[in-house]
Amino acid sequence: MRWLRYWQGDTLRTAVMEASQDYVRPVSGDPFGEHRVSDERVPLAGLRLGPPIAPSKIVAVALNYRSHLSDRDEPGNPELFLKPPSALAGDGDAIVLPAGAGRVDYEGEVVVVIGRRLRHATEAEALSAIFGYTCGNDVSARDWQNGDKQWWRAKGADTFAPIGPWIETDLAPSDISLRTLVDGEERQAATTAQLIHSIPKVLAFASAVMTLEPGDIVFTGTPGTTQPLLPGQMVEVEVGGVGRLRNSVTGEHRAPPVQ
Amino acid sequence: MRWLRYWQGDTLRTAVMEASQDYVRPVSGDPFGEHRVSDERVPLAGLRLGPPIAPSKIVAVALNYRSHLSDRDEPGNPELFLKPPSALAGDGDAIVLPAGAGRVDYEGEVVVVIGRRLRHATEAEALSAIFGYTCGNDVSARDWQNGDKQWWRAKGADTFAPIGPWIETDLAPSDISLRTLVDGEERQAATTAQLIHSIPKVLAFASAVMTLEPGDIVFTGTPGTTQPLLPGQMVEVEVGGVGRLRNSVTGEHRAPPVQ
Repeated sequence: MRWLRYWQGDTLRTAVMEASQDYVRPVSGDPFGEHRVSDERVPLAGLRLGPPIAPSKIVAVALNYRSHLSDRDEPGNPELFLKPPSALAGDGDAIVLPAGAGRVDYEGEVVVVIGRRLRHATEAEALSAIFGYTCGNDVSARDWQNGDKQWWRAKGADTFAPIGPWIETDLAPSDISLRTLVDGEERQAATTAQLIHSIPKVLAFASAVMTLEPGDIVFTGTPGTTQPLLPGQMVEVEVGGVGRLRNSVTGEHRAPPVQ
Repeated sequence: MRWLRYWQGDTLRTAVMEASQDYVRPVSGDPFGEHRVSDERVPLAGLRLGPPIAPSKIVAVALNYRSHLSDRDEPGNPELFLKPPSALAGDGDAIVLPAGAGRVDYEGEVVVVIGRRLRHATEAEALSAIFGYTCGNDVSARDWQNGDKQWWRAKGADTFAPIGPWIETDLAPSDISLRTLVDGEERQAATTAQLIHSIPKVLAFASAVMTLEPGDIVFTGTPGTTQPLLPGQMVEVEVGGVGRLRNSVTGEHRAPPVQ
């Protein structure tokens, strides 16, 4: 099943997609608990989509494909970090290159959505608590990433966490294909079979120290090499069995903040 | 005015304190928008308090008092990082030392609560958007902080962000006193007049790249040196004009996760 959210005026409405994929049906209640699918049918065409979920936190994995390591050592543990919910964007939204950020790269990733509270979970428990999968772009400002002590803005500026277009629930995490395209040209290609730390392992590892809540999302790592995004480009992240997340790139038209 | 939240069964209720400080009055609605203070009076004594606010994100500042720098350079920009909302705890809750974490230190801090959405704010705009202040403990696992690439678990494990006991709205940020006590003995003492980057500057700097939402909180930095917390200790963070946040310390009684 596919879950999404779309804008209706100023509010995001949750919906599920019909099998035909031409219409969606709005949902009321809690996607992870009691909810009701309405009889209303809304044509998908013409909807402006938002991020398909509102996570209480966003966890992400660094250095999780060998192809992305270059001369760095393979990490013994998953190397995690946090992105703030204010960085979320939806399919069709623009990625805004912040004034003064310098180089900003795409990082196409498979994103996991948690469906049930996890704490001290085994890998099997983590696997069974996954709600679904979506496409994500872990947009990364390299100069800030190298210059700051922590990656709060390098990975956390507004629009640096586009996800979508929807969440697919009927997918297994062991071999999901992933591609990134810039202006239609393939730039990254991998499968989750190549992850250094598997998705259940990452979730179990995170849940050993922090509670993962229903709706929380995990960016699982980016493969290969990445390149800077330029204003006017279109970046697409394609996850097999899900679809394509499309975001244009735009520059922020203001003077850099005084630093 | 003082705002707090207390547990009623499984839910947290928002309330404001009466002038006498003996009773609280439950509030319905949005503390930052339309809300109603009820006529019901609930005795403060005997209430179990929760974190006084539910932030969409927690921003924190590293290296913001000269007394905490030792041989490190004074940062030109505020050095920020994120803590996850799952790390929150309230006054009276235990700080749990995670199995396998090694050394875990207290870091007493003044915490700012945002009252109005901020983006590209000037320092004056940021100042006027502050809702209030509370006490916070930026609990920090030093071995993880030194060994991991990012501080996701060093600063983000469950119970590593106690705040409270309440939010005081009638306070100016320029000279707020701060003390930390362990088992009644003073371990840290400073005032926000000694901050390297002032509170309005930190907020303006953060808002240049990320939207700060009403309810978001900012840990403003810790002074002096810090020491490990031990099971059985009581750690208190006192903020002048607010009060004291009290948390006991307990060990996690389970085998460390396989790593």
